[in-house]
Amino acid sequence: MKFGLFGGAQAVPGEVVTEAALGYHEYGEYIQTAEKLGYESAWMVEHHFTGFSQLSATLNYISYLSGITSKIRLGSAVVVVPWHNPVLLAEQVATIDQLSKGRYDFGIGRGYRANEFNGFGIDMADAEDIFQESIAFMRRAFTETDRWSYKSDRYTFNDIIVEPPVVQLPHPPMWVGAGSENSIRAAARNGFNLLLDQMTPFEGIGDRVQQYRDELEKMGKDFDPYRIGVTRGFMVANNDNERKEAHILRGKFISEVQVLSTDKRYQAKAFNPVDDNDAETTGTDSVSENGAVLGNSDEMGERVQKLYDLGVRNILLHDLSGNFEGLHQFAEEVMPHFVDKNDPVVAAAE
Amino acid sequence: MKFGLFGGAQAVPGEVVTEAALGYHEYGEYIQTAEKLGYESAWMVEHHFTGFSQLSATLNYISYLSGITSKIRLGSAVVVVPWHNPVLLAEQVATIDQLSKGRYDFGIGRGYRANEFNGFGIDMADAEDIFQESIAFMRRAFTETDRWSYKSDRYTFNDIIVEPPVVQLPHPPMWVGAGSENSIRAAARNGFNLLLDQMTPFEGIGDRVQQYRDELEKMGKDFDPYRIGVTRGFMVANNDNERKEAHILRGKFISEVQVLSTDKRYQAKAFNPVDDNDAETTGTDSVSENGAVLGNSDEMGERVQKLYDLGVRNILLHDLSGNFEGLHQFAEEVMPHFVDKNDPVVAAAE
Repeated sequence: MKFGLFGGAQAVPGEVVTEAALGYHEYGEYIQTAEKLGYESAWMVEHHFTGFSQLSATLNYISYLSGITSKIRLGSAVVVVPWHNPVLLAEQVATIDQLSKGRYDFGIGRGYRANEFNGFGIDMADAEDIFQESIAFMRRAFTETDRWSYKSDRYTFNDIIVEPPVVQLPHPPMWVGAGSENSIRAAARNGFNLLLDQMTPFEGIGDRVQQYRDELEKMGKDFDPYRIGVTRGFMVANNDNERKEAHILRGKFISEVQVLSTDKRYQAKAFNPVDDNDAETTGTDSVSENGAVLGNSDEMGERVQKLYDLGVRNILLHDLSGNFEGLHQFAEEVMPHFVDKNDPVVAAAE
Repeated sequence: MKFGLFGGAQAVPGEVVTEAALGYHEYGEYIQTAEKLGYESAWMVEHHFTGFSQLSATLNYISYLSGITSKIRLGSAVVVVPWHNPVLLAEQVATIDQLSKGRYDFGIGRGYRANEFNGFGIDMADAEDIFQESIAFMRRAFTETDRWSYKSDRYTFNDIIVEPPVVQLPHPPMWVGAGSENSIRAAARNGFNLLLDQMTPFEGIGDRVQQYRDELEKMGKDFDPYRIGVTRGFMVANNDNERKEAHILRGKFISEVQVLSTDKRYQAKAFNPVDDNDAETTGTDSVSENGAVLGNSDEMGERVQKLYDLGVRNILLHDLSGNFEGLHQFAEEVMPHFVDKNDPVVAAAE
């Protein structure tokens, strides 16, 4: 089983809760510590115009991490493709793949936050088309060794060759976030790895793993459970008081994301990964009680075991506290029971 | 006096000569070595579609360098503004300023290579307008703390706030490359620092320093010679054979840049910094003989003294060899005679 981290730094730590509540350099130390402790990957968000300094130039931050780490895989979760020129994006991805010596996981998305579409002056209705076009463009850019030209209603590129070459062939793995059955099955068909969100309750995760697996098997392809990264709230709480504090922190975070994701001017829900959770109706605490890696070491272990039984083999922990002690506690007291545990995933239907 | 480096890495070292002939990680070690030896800055090129892997995602490379260095200033030379979305560019610049703890020098340009305009499907005739618009946009983005909106024929951004904040106030210094008297005087008027090219002979450099100074003084502003970075070929040659080899290497480089810069379909010369040199008519060797920091330690010292006498206080050395020994030799045998030498610049007209 593999364990990674999900989150990001905050240039101006303030009262508002975003990711790890750590500055750019402190968060770098946090990732270095995670690397030493055996965490296998670190995934960075990309967000714009939040007003509370979530990582915006995520690929630059990952480039920085490439310089200060040597083993941990580095992922974007996710690069919102419609904001980017596909040539410049492909060059950045290839450069990071070089800098990290092939440790980059290219997480991609269509975007879901209404404030970002509004900010960039892009119609959310175009997101899917731009995404599909840019991904197809980049797949060619990563593999084409001769000069080529490209023309569409949206882009014109002439006699280009996208450099540098990537290290991982044919290109860094592409990971997409998906929540609905349709989008999960489409991810499998399109050759994407899968990122599952942190809001869905445990039970829903099993269904989603099964949908992805089923679609792959329909195509006659093997199912590799490591191609699914399941993000989970990470809330180390060794007593009732810590549990209460952890719920307050995560409740604020969930509320903020919901505000940024919805805007009456846009049908934000179309791409919103928090679509399927019950946070608004049942309160944010239940999101964590029913889906987070929460509690003392014993309880966290039980929750990891629950995910394991549902077919999950790759958990991405999203810590809001920025607490190095929690990072240690999980690595030393929970992880050892699972890292070498890799029974075949039993399909829910069996 | 200050000494820096100008150049970049090459992901796939090959026969073609580009910058330092070093790979991404070797070049990182080269910059770390330069930092230890007392070089004050390192400037990275940005180029696209060359076919020989010049740095393309330059701001990612600089982000990487931010992680593996602590003291040396890091510059782009230059980010070609018309290729970039100004929001994403401002976010990247601010992120690098954070990652480097205020060590970033934001070198910017309009572009001059015909193959890049063609590649990006941008008309060279629009370059000046895009450049002016984007720079004005970014100056506001770096200093605006409230949400704001922007609309032009080219861009629409709504309710944005560009994050993270920059470290250097009001924003990282902006440096522009300029060659003609008009563009040098305009740089002074627009508050830009100045980058002078490596092709212009020594004599021409004195005139350009004087034009920049004169324009500042006309506005009643003080002249600071450190605001001019003068790039020079860096060719350590301790004997005739090494001199010959250095000329061959640099001759190839100059020829390649000229090919990429000119295209009958475009008026590439409009922005071409090699405009004013005599390379084509008198051969590439004379470019170096009349303008490079060339020779053994004594001769390099004489050439630095010549630049010093012309009013230059900040030299950026462009090494094609990637030779760590040359880096040491200059730092140990030439630099010490100049680092503490800082007489006021005597105006040529005096």
